Amino acid sequence: MRLDLCTWQEVERYLEHSRGIIIPIGSHEQHGPNGLIGTDAICPEVIARGVGERHQVLVGPTLGVGMAQHHLGFAGSISLRPSTLMAVVADVVSSLVRHGFTHIYFLNGHGGNIATVTAAFSELYAEQSLAGGAAGFHLKLANWFLGRRVMEVTDFLYGGSNGSHATAAEVSLTYYAYPDAAKQVEMSPRVAPDGPFRDSADFRSKFPDGRMGSDPSSACAEHGEQLFEAAVEDTWRTYSQFVDGALRAAR
Amino acid sequence: MRLDLCTWQEVERYLEHSRGIIIPIGSHEQHGPNGLIGTDAICPEVIARGVGERHQVLVGPTLGVGMAQHHLGFAGSISLRPSTLMAVVADVVSSLVRHGFTHIYFLNGHGGNIATVTAAFSELYAEQSLAGGAAGFHLKLANWFLGRRVMEVTDFLYGGSNGSHATAAEVSLTYYAYPDAAKQVEMSPRVAPDGPFRDSADFRSKFPDGRMGSDPSSACAEHGEQLFEAAVEDTWRTYSQFVDGALRAAR
Amino acid sequence: MRLDLCTWQEVERYLEHSRGIIIPIGSHEQHGPNGLIGTDAICPEVIARGVGERHQVLVGPTLGVGMAQHHLGFAGSISLRPSTLMAVVADVVSSLVRHGFTHIYFLNGHGGNIATVTAAFSELYAEQSLAGGAAGFHLKLANWFLGRRVMEVTDFLYGGSNGSHATAAEVSLTYYAYPDAAKQVEMSPRVAPDGPFRDSADFRSKFPDGRMGSDPSSACAEHGEQLFEAAVEDTWRTYSQFVDGALRAAR
Amino acid sequence: MRLDLCTWQEVERYLEHSRGIIIPIGSHEQHGPNGLIGTDAICPEVIARGVGERHQVLVGPTLGVGMAQHHLGFAGSISLRPSTLMAVVADVVSSLVRHGFTHIYFLNGHGGNIATVTAAFSELYAEQSLAGGAAGFHLKLANWFLGRRVMEVTDFLYGGSNGSHATAAEVSLTYYAYPDAAKQVEMSPRVAPDGPFRDSADFRSKFPDGRMGSDPSSACAEHGEQLFEAAVEDTWRTYSQFVDGALRAAR
Amino acid sequence: MRLDLCTWQEVERYLEHSRGIIIPIGSHEQHGPNGLIGTDAICPEVIARGVGERHQVLVGPTLGVGMAQHHLGFAGSISLRPSTLMAVVADVVSSLVRHGFTHIYFLNGHGGNIATVTAAFSELYAEQSLAGGAAGFHLKLANWFLGRRVMEVTDFLYGGSNGSHATAAEVSLTYYAYPDAAKQVEMSPRVAPDGPFRDSADFRSKFPDGRMGSDPSSACAEHGEQLFEAAVEDTWRTYSQFVDGALRAAR
Amino acid sequence: MRLDLCTWQEVERYLEHSRGIIIPIGSHEQHGPNGLIGTDAICPEVIARGVGERHQVLVGPTLGVGMAQHHLGFAGSISLRPSTLMAVVADVVSSLVRHGFTHIYFLNGHGGNIATVTAAFSELYAEQSLAGGAAGFHLKLANWFLGRRVMEVTDFLYGGSNGSHATAAEVSLTYYAYPDAAKQVEMSPRVAPDGPFRDSADFRSKFPDGRMGSDPSSACAEHGEQLFEAAVEDTWRTYSQFVDGALRAAR
Ligand code: NI
Ligand code: NI
Ligand code: NI
Ligand code: NI
Ligand code: NI
Ligand code: NI
Repeated sequence: MRLDLCTWQEVERYLEHSRGIIIPIGSHEQHGPNGLIGTDAICPEVIARGVGERHQVLVGPTLGVGMAQHHLGFAGSISLRPSTLMAVVADVVSSLVRHGFTHIYFLNGHGGNIATVTAAFSELYAEQSLAGGAAGFHLKLANWFLGRRVMEVTDFLYGGSNGSHATAAEVSLTYYAYPDAAKQVEMSPRVAPDGPFRDSADFRSKFPDGRMGSDPSSACAEHGEQLFEAAVEDTWRTYSQFVDGALRAAR
Repeated sequence: MRLDLCTWQEVERYLEHSRGIIIPIGSHEQHGPNGLIGTDAICPEVIARGVGERHQVLVGPTLGVGMAQHHLGFAGSISLRPSTLMAVVADVVSSLVRHGFTHIYFLNGHGGNIATVTAAFSELYAEQSLAGGAAGFHLKLANWFLGRRVMEVTDFLYGGSNGSHATAAEVSLTYYAYPDAAKQVEMSPRVAPDGPFRDSADFRSKFPDGRMGSDPSSACAEHGEQLFEAAVEDTWRTYSQFVDGALRAAR
Repeated sequence: MRLDLCTWQEVERYLEHSRGIIIPIGSHEQHGPNGLIGTDAICPEVIARGVGERHQVLVGPTLGVGMAQHHLGFAGSISLRPSTLMAVVADVVSSLVRHGFTHIYFLNGHGGNIATVTAAFSELYAEQSLAGGAAGFHLKLANWFLGRRVMEVTDFLYGGSNGSHATAAEVSLTYYAYPDAAKQVEMSPRVAPDGPFRDSADFRSKFPDGRMGSDPSSACAEHGEQLFEAAVEDTWRTYSQFVDGALRAAR
Repeated sequence: MRLDLCTWQEVERYLEHSRGIIIPIGSHEQHGPNGLIGTDAICPEVIARGVGERHQVLVGPTLGVGMAQHHLGFAGSISLRPSTLMAVVADVVSSLVRHGFTHIYFLNGHGGNIATVTAAFSELYAEQSLAGGAAGFHLKLANWFLGRRVMEVTDFLYGGSNGSHATAAEVSLTYYAYPDAAKQVEMSPRVAPDGPFRDSADFRSKFPDGRMGSDPSSACAEHGEQLFEAAVEDTWRTYSQFVDGALRAAR
Repeated sequence: MRLDLCTWQEVERYLEHSRGIIIPIGSHEQHGPNGLIGTDAICPEVIARGVGERHQVLVGPTLGVGMAQHHLGFAGSISLRPSTLMAVVADVVSSLVRHGFTHIYFLNGHGGNIATVTAAFSELYAEQSLAGGAAGFHLKLANWFLGRRVMEVTDFLYGGSNGSHATAAEVSLTYYAYPDAAKQVEMSPRVAPDGPFRDSADFRSKFPDGRMGSDPSSACAEHGEQLFEAAVEDTWRTYSQFVDGALRAAR
Repeated sequence: MRLDLCTWQEVERYLEHSRGIIIPIGSHEQHGPNGLIGTDAICPEVIARGVGERHQVLVGPTLGVGMAQHHLGFAGSISLRPSTLMAVVADVVSSLVRHGFTHIYFLNGHGGNIATVTAAFSELYAEQSLAGGAAGFHLKLANWFLGRRVMEVTDFLYGGSNGSHATAAEVSLTYYAYPDAAKQVEMSPRVAPDGPFRDSADFRSKFPDGRMGSDPSSACAEHGEQLFEAAVEDTWRTYSQFVDGALRAAR
């Protein structure tokens, strides 16, 4: 169930039997020579919609622009400041809570979002904690690429060379989602360097083609399909635990 | 050309011959009994992509959540505060300017965004104006539903009863984009009331089913296609004037 | 009734029979070769005070500095950032609401304020809408220069050449208010160019003497008086509709 | 010279021989049973204009709404939050600095503004200090009621009973400026209590009629004139020292 | 009683008989040739802990970084912007109020903090005043160096040459607290210049070794001990008046 | 070398041979029945000072109040909002960078700070990345409790029962630092429950005595000494790699 394709009455009916929703959150940033700029938005969006269709879970709008300051040295990358992304998360959560949603599951496609979204959750909770009240909502950030099944499939397909940015796994998943957008590019070096970084100038100097530790040359739609299936399974498992576990605890 | 499906090298090549980009901007908010919550995001997205494909214009990420505080009385509506949306626009513009984009055309699907996005532009310009410098970028906000051809088609199809929210025109366009999401709903009253409003409680009390002044019962994909063609034409015309006019003025 | 000349007990008595107030809002910015920097603050102030005296409406402090970033290329212009002006409007409204005012009518003299003040209203309403409450106050922004009678008089006096900035109409009104400040200046060209603009550098390059589309050379105090009378009539009509209409709706 | 009655060309000419400007800053807040709500804005405005006329000093717009949270328990009082007032001061200063003003003298009428305006100055200076640059501007906050001559006249007229809020001195000055607004009210007790306070509820409970330590029953326009003359003298002396002293130091 | 050395149960027991707490607040900034960078944090910390031990008053964490933008021209100085320090004070107060503390006494060691902390208090009170409620907490800022006994001892020890920054009194107190950190430095000139300043570049040009109006060459631990005793006496007197006076007023 | 005990000239000399500094960052929050509220500030402070003394590294002020919203259900806990802590980190970094520090190492004692401080770093880097410049500074966040040697010692001493909050390891370290503050408390249950949490109400309901997964009953100063030695070793190793590695990379 895609929220954008529902009427408000349909959402009202959904709320009669469920208080949970999935919000895909990603980024628009370079993903190396053969990876798509939208990779980190596309992956959680297609996974979330897969879960939504198979399990009648409502899927909200994809927050497609994230915290990607370190990628701004490469054309086309777009970043929100952490403070801006925190405000976005706060307003989206507040809007949903207003309607009675109590379990908001952010399915994330971008490592660079993790700290900021976590801080955004704390900002929301702090409002309640400082006032001495109790938050009526539960927030969860799940990274699709760290799901149990996804990591098994990733290891099986790429062994230790999946890397940390512009990975074969995420590129494959986008090729599965958008087969026409697949690109054939020779990687040089085969496996990119990896390591820490600071701002966009530092990042570009260390990772000249944008990849970090990865070799996405074997990325393909077939792999992507396997990863999609694994990710839908992971997401449904953790989402339903999140929603039901919390409900059980509340009883 | 969809930015999310490009690599950064493809964007770099695009920038060699063009400095313009279209950013669809919309909202997730109720659109009456048969209108989709994503209407205002879907419309500019499909129009922008139409222009992008036909005219090789780069289309950035859809900013799908806008300023829709007045719709929060209806389930599923999501709103950013004006100050949050201003920060989002500022960061997106700053990111694009960093890469050399000079003409950023926001194609808007939601009346409620107009004041806030205009204020966001002024906030960006003010930074330059207070510092005594000159902004190296041009910003434009265009509302697809006010395009010259779109208004002609709208008048032809619906006469004076298109209304101001959850209109037959926008609903038709979404049915063209997502035929399976079309809904058949009896409207009562046939034409909804119209008028000013304040917050979400006031809005809901005045517009009980969410429509304002509209009768979208005749909305259909066929109308949507005509509107799509008109909107692509309008957008391409004003976009190319924006990009070329400014370039001419700069010579 | 000027708020600044009342005691708090007088305001308390006023609130026993009325919950409405007019807040003049303007700008301090260049107005071409013969227009005063304070034009946009002076006009709504004198009109509001005219209404206040004739109809016993309370008139609050003139918010004399507005959003005028585009005029900063001309000496003496002062601008708030949009975000600052939004904070000012929010605090003024919150203060008045605290005392029991429910209908706050901003009489505006400056086109550049419109988007920002509208966004400020939405920011205030959003607070209520996100919290699920109902705003107990009504906000209205009225532009004196767009009043029905004012536009009739303007058309009668200046035909189509009133222009959009440093207009004959507004200059006349300030000469009526401050006859000693009237200046005689030869305009060259007679009618200034008009069109869109961006930041202050862009504005100055397009509008070298500060006027936009106007020919204020015939501005005079006599015209100003006619415009004053028209504006008082317009303002009283829309103010009383605003206050009474809302009250009727509330019954 | 009133900035609001100048054209931009007149300001440009002024800047050829002076880089200084006076900005009156005040408040709209209760001033006891016979004091005007605008007292703290009116006083610095009339004094500044007096200096402006006699000594050809440019006088900018009165910032008429200040930090008066503690007065909000009395009808008609309006307050900005400290953070809002800081933003206003920052933008006004930045605008003036943009034009080449280097000495900005805030003539203040309200004790409650002092801490906030001082903090605003530090916020502006901090920007430079953190960046390792040097501020090209000088800021000064002067309180008219603490001027040397004003305090002599106040002591002569009212001895020790001038008090700290709604004082005979400030009320007299407003009666001089607006004789028709003078009110005759019996004070009870004759001299109001004085002391510290916190928020508006605390203030109202301690100072039931709004006065603090004052007996303004003898306030009159004649006293006001003497205070006006003293204040113009004080302001001109400290303003010219500010502008010239700084210039001498710069040589 | 040091809060950092308590368990939460011990704090709970403390709250059964007292609702007051002391928060030392200072700065890390240059203090001339023989003064320590931590001077303004060390002084209120040791005084507060002295009061805490002798009188069983709870002492919270030292807010050791303050508003010191003007000192940033000297290595090692650290400053918060005023807006940042205001946010810190607000969150600390809100946290303590949450637990039931009603009287929060900030013992300050740095003149540069006074305006900002005062503005922070007003920001907190404004929240209540604008909402029409009553703050349930009392805030006080006390400057140890302006205490009655401290000023007597300072005058006795240093006569009129204590100065206004890097004073003999504060240096002595730090030497008493940290005898091993005492430095012997020849001062040149013996007594430093004094006067107003703006940003850090201006400050450094006027006060080349960092001192303002002081001669700290005779600073010593013995003096420091006398000042410590005086300051503990001052602080206990004003703290207990603050806590008890307010309680009496509440009855 | 403690910055607070240096003069500015001493810092100037330090900067001639080193550009690195350690900033301890912690929290004031409940740490269970026998843990001190200052635990997370005390631990990094004593470790940093240990490194500072043995290896001549400059140690800046302890940022002793962190992001601890989830602990606010227990008396004495103090929290900054994430946005406030981000502003503090930004200003501290900016101040140090102003003086020429290029490597700023935050030694952290509190898990709840990690996301927020990471987001703060990104906010600082984003400023550079959006402007297209290069940050001249390197920032690192290190958690003492995750150091290699510390984890070995922790495992040796407490096996798997160290837990995640109010751990035996951190309590021991504070007892080593403040032996007189050690408390003997019977824990019930012996090992506390563990798991995720949201706001302070949720935290308190799940962790009634404040501990998470820990059994700190065997905490003692002797263990603390071993942990101190391990932590000094860890910190010196990673600090010197940070400072030197970056310098090597820059060559
Ligand atoms: Ni990715
Ligand atoms: Ni719509
Ligand atoms: Ni105008
Ligand atoms: Ni006053
Ligand atoms: Ni000091
Ligand atoms: Ni801890």
